[in-house]
Amino acid sequence: MRIRKKKWTERELASSPRMIHDPSEYKGCWHKYFHNSNPIHLELGCGKGRFITALSSRCTEINYLAFERDRVVIATGVRASAGLECSLGFIVGEARDLPNYFDRGEIRRIYLNFSDPWPGKKKWAKRRLTHGAFLDTYKELMGDNGEIFFKTDNKALFEFSLNQFCEKGWNLRNIFLDLHNSKYYGRTSAEDIRRENIMTEYEERFHSMGQPIYSCEAYYLN
Amino acid sequence: MRIRKKKWTERELASSPRMIHDPSEYKGCWHKYFHNSNPIHLELGCGKGRFITALSSRCTEINYLAFERDRVVIATGVRASAGLECSLGFIVGEARDLPNYFDRGEIRRIYLNFSDPWPGKKKWAKRRLTHGAFLDTYKELMGDNGEIFFKTDNKALFEFSLNQFCEKGWNLRNIFLDLHNSKYYGRTSAEDIRRENIMTEYEERFHSMGQPIYSCEAYYLN
Repeated sequence: MRIRKKKWTERELASSPRMIHDPSEYKGCWHKYFHNSNPIHLELGCGKGRFITALSSRCTEINYLAFERDRVVIATGVRASAGLECSLGFIVGEARDLPNYFDRGEIRRIYLNFSDPWPGKKKWAKRRLTHGAFLDTYKELMGDNGEIFFKTDNKALFEFSLNQFCEKGWNLRNIFLDLHNSKYYGRTSAEDIRRENIMTEYEERFHSMGQPIYSCEAYYLN
Repeated sequence: MRIRKKKWTERELASSPRMIHDPSEYKGCWHKYFHNSNPIHLELGCGKGRFITALSSRCTEINYLAFERDRVVIATGVRASAGLECSLGFIVGEARDLPNYFDRGEIRRIYLNFSDPWPGKKKWAKRRLTHGAFLDTYKELMGDNGEIFFKTDNKALFEFSLNQFCEKGWNLRNIFLDLHNSKYYGRTSAEDIRRENIMTEYEERFHSMGQPIYSCEAYYLN
């Protein structure tokens, strides 16, 4: 996502109590940041933060971290979350930095919403956030058991991701090839999942254009 | 698949040496039927048998069984296979009869090609050949390890099937959401899989109409 630099970006990032400027400071002790021992869910690539802001307002017993590499984009989320009753922090960073910020098992769930599909060159496959090498990293962050909630409008990325999850030994559930129209379902009904679903900015746009949204949950238990 | 009854159907079925009239006779001793101990692969719902006839001609070290409930449809396959050098037998039957015909572990691989999606009523889900209850039956036939090669043009059936495989603890590999156009791939490249792929009658028709073909392999190791 690319948006024009706003004048207030750096001021917002500097002044918001929700911005975590040095996340490595909390490595191994995130409960101190959150002042509780509730599970931590992380959205990797939160964009303007609409999804994670809505989710954290709804589920106040979970600690949320919104992770995004673009300072301008994340600033919108930081601003939108001001004054909300929720346990939510924002981090500017790259996925590859995650191991510097979290000890094994500190994260319980990761959300990947409309990640960059990196189409084109074959060598770019490893930049996709569902590439096997990243999946191994996430396993480290999540320890003995963890889960990834994944949504995308990109069919090719979804196909790639299903295969990567399977190759790396993750289990899958609630696989949807057209989230908003599917009639078939797994253990949980499609209606229940749609009722709980929070649309991201991208999702709303693609859905309104009639494009199918692909989604699944990947998990493992060691 | 429904085609008009042909005059020669019953004559063909009665006279072909490839027709197995009482498969329960070979339960537990299929090596006697085939006169060897090679693995047995079964196509469930072989239709007019184009796929299994081509496959069995290509892979002569595998024993093939073509299973179909429609006598008229299977007769075309029986006739087409006459004179071919291959290890191939035909059975008329229903999927639910399978346990009467095979002991645990006698089948090594099952092909499900363009199975009836049974859309519409929710209660019909259990008629789909990838329904969890059928998957349990297949596991019995395949014993300690087995695999299902599944193809369909029906997106909803594919979604249903992925979820059923996962719920029943099967592993997945080589998942394609558009077999003939996919660029992404698992451990085996999409090109390799397409090179090996044998099109069924349905597949050729749907592919020529520009519709995507969905496919995957499900397997388990006990």
